[in-house]
Amino acid sequence: MIRVHSATISSLLKQSHHIMLSSIVRRRLSSSCSLLSSTKSSSPSSSVLARKWIYAKTFKGEPSQQNFRLESENLPALKDGDFLAKAEFISVDPYMRPYMMAYPEGSLMIGGQISKVVESKNPAFPVGATVFGQFGWRTHTVCNPSKLERDFPYVLPELPGSLPTSLGLGVLGMPGNTAYFGLLELCSPKKGETVLVSGAAGAVGSLVGQIAKIQGCRVVGLAGSDEKCRWLKEIGFDETINYKTTADLYGDMKKAAPKGFDVYFDNVGGRTSELAIKLMNLYGRIAVCGTISNYNSTSIDKVTDPLRMMVFKQLKMEGFLVWRWNDRWMEGIEANLKWIKDGKLKWQETVTEGFENTPEAFMDMLKGGNVGKAVVKV
Amino acid sequence: MIRVHSATISSLLKQSHHIMLSSIVRRRLSSSCSLLSSTKSSSPSSSVLARKWIYAKTFKGEPSQQNFRLESENLPALKDGDFLAKAEFISVDPYMRPYMMAYPEGSLMIGGQISKVVESKNPAFPVGATVFGQFGWRTHTVCNPSKLERDFPYVLPELPGSLPTSLGLGVLGMPGNTAYFGLLELCSPKKGETVLVSGAAGAVGSLVGQIAKIQGCRVVGLAGSDEKCRWLKEIGFDETINYKTTADLYGDMKKAAPKGFDVYFDNVGGRTSELAIKLMNLYGRIAVCGTISNYNSTSIDKVTDPLRMMVFKQLKMEGFLVWRWNDRWMEGIEANLKWIKDGKLKWQETVTEGFENTPEAFMDMLKGGNVGKAVVKV
Repeated sequence: MIRVHSATISSLLKQSHHIMLSSIVRRRLSSSCSLLSSTKSSSPSSSVLARKWIYAKTFKGEPSQQNFRLESENLPALKDGDFLAKAEFISVDPYMRPYMMAYPEGSLMIGGQISKVVESKNPAFPVGATVFGQFGWRTHTVCNPSKLERDFPYVLPELPGSLPTSLGLGVLGMPGNTAYFGLLELCSPKKGETVLVSGAAGAVGSLVGQIAKIQGCRVVGLAGSDEKCRWLKEIGFDETINYKTTADLYGDMKKAAPKGFDVYFDNVGGRTSELAIKLMNLYGRIAVCGTISNYNSTSIDKVTDPLRMMVFKQLKMEGFLVWRWNDRWMEGIEANLKWIKDGKLKWQETVTEGFENTPEAFMDMLKGGNVGKAVVKV
Repeated sequence: MIRVHSATISSLLKQSHHIMLSSIVRRRLSSSCSLLSSTKSSSPSSSVLARKWIYAKTFKGEPSQQNFRLESENLPALKDGDFLAKAEFISVDPYMRPYMMAYPEGSLMIGGQISKVVESKNPAFPVGATVFGQFGWRTHTVCNPSKLERDFPYVLPELPGSLPTSLGLGVLGMPGNTAYFGLLELCSPKKGETVLVSGAAGAVGSLVGQIAKIQGCRVVGLAGSDEKCRWLKEIGFDETINYKTTADLYGDMKKAAPKGFDVYFDNVGGRTSELAIKLMNLYGRIAVCGTISNYNSTSIDKVTDPLRMMVFKQLKMEGFLVWRWNDRWMEGIEANLKWIKDGKLKWQETVTEGFENTPEAFMDMLKGGNVGKAVVKV
């Protein structure tokens, strides 16, 4: 596990591409691309061998190597409209844990990747282009976007300077937009309000806190190590709490926010949220982005029924998936990019080297081993 | 317990009165009026004896007669700006159970009442006027509205025909507006959607279901007796479930809504809501109006953490108190009145006779003894 990239920077993604990602839970992500190839029986002369990680065994509890199987397949020669993409960075995200439960064993592991077009019969995806696609955990993909119904790949523009293309999986991609839209659209943070972020050192949480600071809020972050807390302070969080080592999470949150919380951006659910809700102010807004605390659980924990608190504090709580803002995708990316250029938005990535280590990167991320966005460098 | 009034009717409440009810949980309701009189030491010649129910002992579990104490006091002679109101109907509502927990023992029991002005030194409240006021559980009140900061009383217009003034406590008052604004503003019910209402035979729930029908929705109601369920069918609910006698509440709800629920208007919380949330559709809206299932509990039940479901179904849940729409109060009353006149909105009241029976009426209502609005005829 090597931490490679670290913050600041430039001008990219100016063009407004058409994006249509999935908007439903049960996704057949990238199947049109991968199946297109894997169902081919004839192996062309210029055959390319793709490696891919298969969902070998349905998750139960914490994932282990047994849940994954490495396979390879020969990809077919390109037809008109196809392009061949070679993966550069593969995304590992918390959502994959619950989402995969909807897939049968033997499915390709789902997820976004940044890839380079190495062969093309599609002028919109020329050789050399850097592409974001929902291609899953695989090294090479043959894709014809016109055969997709959703999850359309899109070309990233040239990135200036030392800016890594992996940002298209993080601050300038899905997690960035999750933070941007989730916080601003669902929580309407106002200057002077206090915002609580759980999973604060993760890909989404670290951006949420900074965007809240840009809005003029006081920000409290919950994270799982002293190192993470230090980094959060560096990037502007007012208060941080190491939820793993505190003896009194409720007391510490209360101390960190003597006037209570107006906004709670939740990535974890469970006991942490149960306590946080008790500290919400009248008309508080809660965006529920994820509940990573129970993704590995076979049964979901019981918590004090929050509804009574919801009534008397007149709280609003909304769960969301970022795909609901597909039609505004570039707005989020451009806003985050501008803040990066203005020095207001810092990012960090935890980069695992080697395609063969993708399951390990995923499992480590679920345990909170990452700071910022977790990606695999293929 | 006599059921007196029953549905249909006419034209009233045309005037738009200025309404400012409390907007915070910890209310000092009607204190300016009652304290004004009770702290007077001198007893005037034309003294009026007021009877009042005192919160004698902090609620713990189910209320009993021991929680209440009947007292009387001599009211002072009127000063300029005062009027003397004689109670006709007193409201007993679920919210009183949790709200009173914020009051010290010895406080007047809180609540709205419909009263008649019997003496006045205030031209805005002339003798004979019918008034809605947050005067609490008392037979007579001396009030000077200009000394109040909130909870301003307002004059009801003459009621035509046989329409009881008690409707100002129900369909044409707080519960009516709770149903109207809570459903329409927070749940945005659309034609063809399915709406679930818990506490469906109560003052609020019975109106919510009918307003949802007016919007073109399919409506499923949960109530606690076969008699209540029959009445709900009479007033247009598509399906009803007696939650007290069903062996499989979840299965029955699923059967009643094969396409799931788009909207859930919740009055009960707890286990019922835990199951209902499992049956919500993508982008479902939940308005939490009350959680009567735990109002008598010393500790609040544990439920399965709903946050995970909130995320993947992208649910919105909002708790509310009707006072947030104070500035639109007459809009709700006029809309409900129009629907009554059009025969689209039926109402029912459970009327308890006798001021001395107010605690009994309150306790009975908390047990679900009422159909429609519970009031006390003084």
